[in-house]
Order: sequence, then structure tokens, then C-alpha cells
Amino acid sequence: MSFNKIPTRTNVQKILGHLKLNDGVIYLNGSVMQERDNTDVELPFRQESNFYYVTGVNEPDFHVVIDIATGKTTLVAPNVVPDHVMWMGMPDSLETLQAKYDVDQVIYADKINALITPAPKVYTLPITRTTAIDALTSNKCNADEQKALENAFIDARLIKADWEVEIMRKANKISSDAHIKLWQAVKVGCNEAQLHALFLYESARHGAFFQSYFPIVGAGMNAATLHYNKNNAVMNNPNDVVLVDAGAEYDLYASDITRVFPVSGKFTPEARVIYSIVLEMQKTSIDLCKAGVAWEDIHMKATEVGCDGLLKAGILVGDKKEILEKSVMAAFFPHGIGHSIGMDVHDVGGYPDNVERINKPGICNLRMRRTLAAGFAVTVEPGIYFFDYLIDPVLNHPDTGKYINVDALNKYKSVGGVRIEDNLIITQDKPINLTTVPKEIDEIESLMAAN
Amino acid sequence: MSFNKIPTRTNVQKILGHLKLNDGVIYLNGSVMQERDNTDVELPFRQESNFYYVTGVNEPDFHVVIDIATGKTTLVAPNVVPDHVMWMGMPDSLETLQAKYDVDQVIYADKINALITPAPKVYTLPITRTTAIDALTSNKCNADEQKALENAFIDARLIKADWEVEIMRKANKISSDAHIKLWQAVKVGCNEAQLHALFLYESARHGAFFQSYFPIVGAGMNAATLHYNKNNAVMNNPNDVVLVDAGAEYDLYASDITRVFPVSGKFTPEARVIYSIVLEMQKTSIDLCKAGVAWEDIHMKATEVGCDGLLKAGILVGDKKEILEKSVMAAFFPHGIGHSIGMDVHDVGGYPDNVERINKPGICNLRMRRTLAAGFAVTVEPGIYFFDYLIDPVLNHPDTGKYINVDALNKYKSVGGVRIEDNLIITQDKPINLTTVPKEIDEIESLMAAN
Repeated sequence: MSFNKIPTRTNVQKILGHLKLNDGVIYLNGSVMQERDNTDVELPFRQESNFYYVTGVNEPDFHVVIDIATGKTTLVAPNVVPDHVMWMGMPDSLETLQAKYDVDQVIYADKINALITPAPKVYTLPITRTTAIDALTSNKCNADEQKALENAFIDARLIKADWEVEIMRKANKISSDAHIKLWQAVKVGCNEAQLHALFLYESARHGAFFQSYFPIVGAGMNAATLHYNKNNAVMNNPNDVVLVDAGAEYDLYASDITRVFPVSGKFTPEARVIYSIVLEMQKTSIDLCKAGVAWEDIHMKATEVGCDGLLKAGILVGDKKEILEKSVMAAFFPHGIGHSIGMDVHDVGGYPDNVERINKPGICNLRMRRTLAAGFAVTVEPGIYFFDYLIDPVLNHPDTGKYINVDALNKYKSVGGVRIEDNLIITQDKPINLTTVPKEIDEIESLMAAN
Repeated sequence: MSFNKIPTRTNVQKILGHLKLNDGVIYLNGSVMQERDNTDVELPFRQESNFYYVTGVNEPDFHVVIDIATGKTTLVAPNVVPDHVMWMGMPDSLETLQAKYDVDQVIYADKINALITPAPKVYTLPITRTTAIDALTSNKCNADEQKALENAFIDARLIKADWEVEIMRKANKISSDAHIKLWQAVKVGCNEAQLHALFLYESARHGAFFQSYFPIVGAGMNAATLHYNKNNAVMNNPNDVVLVDAGAEYDLYASDITRVFPVSGKFTPEARVIYSIVLEMQKTSIDLCKAGVAWEDIHMKATEVGCDGLLKAGILVGDKKEILEKSVMAAFFPHGIGHSIGMDVHDVGGYPDNVERINKPGICNLRMRRTLAAGFAVTVEPGIYFFDYLIDPVLNHPDTGKYINVDALNKYKSVGGVRIEDNLIITQDKPINLTTVPKEIDEIESLMAAN
């Protein structure tokens, strides 16, 4: 961790500020160790994000109780089980826990009812397992109150504090460096799995044992599948580009980065064209990212820039306005421009209550509809893909087939897919780009040649 | 995978042989994709072991139906969801699945009721999620019948076929090679996490993206905690030994290997003494492993050899028979000699119905009580640890304190802990040792020097 202690009490204050209540307590439980199926094989432990946000604890079996009137935060540690000590070692004492975490007091679980029982109301999140606490019967909040607490967490978590930005910067640095290692390791005959393994290693050896999500390592046409996860093909074609969408998690904060590079170290002319279109979509989008801008407007601008590029390349033909109105671009750019990112890779708060998805191809997959505010963390990740499953219905439809030039399409199809993705912090002015791996064609080719 | 296709129909025949029924069907469902908490972050997918044993399928959302009278095995694939294709790619056709897996037929899930409804009885395992199947209401088996099916799986899985041994051999080879890489990477100032990361990498780049269990990487006194999992201490003391208990999973079969090596590359005289005792315990145990021997007898023999060693080193003093009777050895060797291993690291079948644990310190933690049979796969993993939490009660007890020499204990305490663990296949004669990483002191020092 880059800090001695995550300042979680500031997070508690943010939540209480959004919650606007006078009394009662908030009760949450952290994750417990889980075992696979009917075996004793423990699954990797990763704390539930909301619990981590108010405690900084990434160990199993803890609880937290927050007094709403005072903000007093009580961390509740599991009682010591003597039989476990032989296997797991001596647990931290209450004093050590108090020193380790930014909370007001630490007690053992067998004392928790004294905090819960007298409360006029106990607020929990929808995911809280209330069966853990005997006393939690008559004074538990209702579903609407749970939702209000969840919204308070969402509103707090959407705006990243400086220390959160620093952790995300570190996650981005680890992942950015790992991406470059892959460029320098790839060669003809290499298996996607080897690059996948190397990314995990370059993350873990810098302290990031979790990935924010399952890495996507797809060469050639595999890159056209948005969440390709087989990662097991041999890269026999030097002309193929490889799409790697991978980001390490550090201190429970995500990074989410996509880069594309040629197996041979040199982009083919066709790959250069498609890559340049996507890069232009991304740069234009990033330039638009600032407080006060509606996220869907950035998506639509990226779509327009992509349309310009495909028109110029001759893959699309005809009237730009008609092409955009008829959502032809969704055949090539079928997903959203990006999403909120934080402790979860698709972080909380995508759609506020009462905001609906836009019911048109492509933009319907946008993961967030909000007006950007300073402190938002977002990904910007346009892409262009050549996936028959998406293109054929548009090509074969009488209303839209005329906008696609099949000869040009066939010329570029083998590029497979290109996506370029960075992680940004929104400000009142230019965004802060946390992602440090280069993305200009010359830079990529030069770093690959330096191997 | 080392095979074109895992011959799962032989496994079905084994289970039916143990089950001894004439009609009805067996219905199991495989694992589904699961997401972390209330997020859309998918957890790593790993098939449930029993399902894999009869299908060879390591993809989500499958089912299987086995006709008991004929043994006919029907693999049930999830129906294609068009919206998923954009994200996950085109799924295998029924023909491709039929070619890929050793089953009699493949159908889509919407056809499954036709196989279930007419059956006079549907046998499931206790972990089967029967809500998945509409028709599974009136003809479902009862809890005793579930248990009988579970026992048939246990009896089948306990005896490994040759192809299973070959997969376990491969898992052992990957892990054995990875252990040696750690020996050659360690140096003073290295963090346990770096060795942990390297083990993951050396596994993954050979196709083993899962570990059989969370690796234990503990230097110095950390090695005294049996399931130490912090793996985050800096190794500043060249005299420390590092205990690494780590095994890759390959094709869903586990390996489970422990080795101990000095940070400096040279064992101290004290570490040599303790290491040699554990090695003697292990070799004696392995020599006893053959069909017809009771597992607890091997545990007791290992304990006796350990006692001889600690007496010779002067850590224990007094009458050997009394020391053993009073379970003094449990202060130093608190766990069992080993366990069944297979698709799960602690594999099925530890305690048969009606066999109880032996209620004495140390041996009470033995994970299996069975008479060995040819085809059993087991770990043999004696250890000696210096953990005050375990030693102090024995030292401070009027009945047992006299058997421990405190001066000698203090001399050896800094060794922390030593465990040596191999994976064996039981035969009528000498066992087959699948683990290829050396364990003689000279070999370890020589491989470390060769770095």
C-alpha cells in the first residue's frame, strides 16, 4: 500500500453527508472466506467494495457499525478461535487493529449486539447478510431505506479523493508497464496464454495479485469478440494485431487498459488505418471529458469521429447523417465509450434512479448516463471491430446494406478488432490521464523494436 | 491438455458399478459464472469436480443426464443467447461439442425435460441445484439416495485411472519446476510476495492458470504457521529457511508440493538437523505406502521417527514410549501425515461413513482414515515446527514439560518450520512418486548455487 493507512473516516463522513439522517446505526458485514463447491478449497479472498470503503479492512469475517449521529465507526473483529491459530497464525490484537485501520474503536464480534440492539434503526445495504447478527430483528430498515443507503455509497464513491486517485495511478502504472512487457515478449508462434500469464506475473510481482477483471488477450479475429476470454490461440500470423484488455487491481482499486500491437512489431497498412481511426475517436473523446458534460454526448461524438474515419477509408459510403441516424456504426462500434471505474472495474453509479438506457443499437450498451463531475474516474475506450455476426445483419438489411462497401470491408476485415482504452480523472478543465502506456503507432513500434 | 479428449465414459461406468441400481437417471449441473458481490466482476470459472469427472467440460452452464440402465450420457449445453455472442463469441455447435467431449449425445438445455420427466427416479448429488430443471419435482431421489450417489463418486474418484495419473504427473512436473525457479530467484531482501508471484507465473505460462490452493510462502518464523497466507514479509535474514507449499492445478487435477530452502543457499547447522529429521520421517513414510496399509499407521510411524530425531537432537528428553503416549510430538508435528489428492487438493473420501477421527492431539488432524488401495493418490508431508502457541502448553504442563529441553529448543527455534511433501500413487508394491523436485540437502544447495 502506498499509504500507512487508508483514511476511511473521510469516506464515512461523505456517506453520512449524502444520507442526511439524524440517528440510528449503519451495519455492514465484510466478506467471509468461501470454499469451492463441497470442498475445502478456499476461494481467493477479496473484500466487498463498500465495506472496504469505510474500513480499509481486506481480511475475512469483520463487521462495521457506524453511529449516524456522531459518525463514530466501530470495527468489529472476529473472535479468536484457538483451533485456527495453528493453521493461520496469531491474529492481530485489538490494539494492533486499532493502529492499522482508520476507525474510532475496535471490538470483538461477541460484543456487537450492544451496539445494534439500542439503535432506533439499523441501516444495511441490500447485500448485507443480516442473519449474522442476532439482535438485528425488530429495528432493521426497510428496502427503501436500504436503497437510500446504497445511493449514499454510490454518490460518495463516484467522486474520488486524492488518495484514491493516487492508488488508481499506481494500479495504472503497474498495468501500463505490464502492457509494454507484453509488446516486448510477443513473437510469431507465441500463445495468447503466454502473454496472459506474463501480464499476471508483471502485476503480481508489483503487489497486484488480483486482476480487475479477466484479461482479454486476442490475436487476429479473436480481437473482434469484445470479451474474448479463451486466450489460448497460437499467434502464427505476423500481420495480426493483438488486442490486450487487462488491468491490475491494486489496493482494491481497478485499472482497465486496452492496447493493440502487431505480432511482427510493425502495423500493416490496413491495421494502421483502423488503429488511427480508433485513436482519433479516443483523443477526441478525451478532449471532451470535463465536468458538466453528459457522458452520452461523448459517446455520440466518438461514434461520429469513427464514422468519418470509416467513410474516409471507404468502408462506409453515403450520407453521414443517415448512417448515424440508422445506427450503422453499431455494426463496428457496438459497445459504449466507457464507464465509471473505482473499486469495481464497472464502478457504482452507472445509471441514476429513473434514468433509462437509450434504446438504440450501440449506445444501448453504454454503461453510464450521467453528467460528469470533478472527481469522476472513467474509462474512455472506443473500438472498431470486424465481426460478421454484427456486420452481416446490417449489410443484409435493405435499409442499411448500401452504406457498407463490401470490397473495402473485405480488405480491412483481417484487422479483427482495435480498442484503445485509458483511465481518466475528470476535473473542471482537462482530465488527468492515469494511463502511462504509450498509444501512438510510432511509440509502439519503437518500443517493440527496442526489445 | 495432454489428451485429445478425457475418457469420461469410463468414469461413468465406474460410478454405475459402485451405485448398483437398475433404472432411473443421474442428473448433475455444472458450475455457472458467478459475480463478485453486487458487481458484474466475474469470478474465475472452475468446473465442479464431480461434474468434470463425468463430462470433461470446463465451461459454464452445462448439465449432464446419465441413464442408469444403459450408461448413456447426455451432455446438455446452454441454449445460444444472441446478445451474448457479441461479448463472448460464437459458442461451439452441438457437433463440435460432440467431437470435443467423450459423451453419447449433446442436446440444448431446452430439450432436457424430455430426459428427466419420464425417469422413474432422478438421482442427484447433495450439491446439485435442482431448481434449474422444471420437471424435477415428483421423481427426485431422497437424501439417502443422494448420499449413495455421492459415495459412488467417492469410490470411483479415489482410484485413479492411468490417464488421471498422467495429468497429475504433468501438474507435478509444472509445480516441481516452479519450485526450483524459486530457489534460483531467492536472495536476501526479496519479498515472499515476489516468490509467490513467480510461482503463479511459472505455473500459468505452462498452462496452469489455477493453483490447487492458496500458496504458502513463509520465511523464518512464518513457516511455523501451517497455512500462512500473508506472503508479504521481506527476507532479510540469510540464515532463514523459506517454506513454500504450492502446487499448480492442471486440467483440474491438483498437485501439492512443499519444499524448504535457505535464503542464503546454504542450510545452517540447525536447519540441517531439523530438515534431516523431517526428510527421514518422509522417506520412512513413503517406504510404508502400499496397498493394504492403514493410513493412520503411517502417521504414527512418521511421528515415531520424528520423535527419534528430536531425542537425538536433544530437543526432547526422556522415555520415547511415554513421549509418544502423551502426544508430546503434537507440539512439533501438529497435523496429519497427508491426504487423498485428485481433482480437489484434499480429495474426496477422507473418512468413510462410520469411521471417526482419532481423538488425540496431532493425529486428530489426520485428513484420511482408510486402508490404502492401488490407485490411491496421496500426499506424504511430515513437518516439524517451532510455534510457541503449540509448544508452550506442552512445555508448561506438569505432565509433559519435562520432556522438552528448553536450551536445545531455543537453539533450534529460529529454524521456524520444515515440511517436505510429495505426491504419490499407491500400488501393490512401491509407490510411484509423481513429484520431481529434489529434496536432498546437497541437491538443493547445488541447484541454488547453479543459479
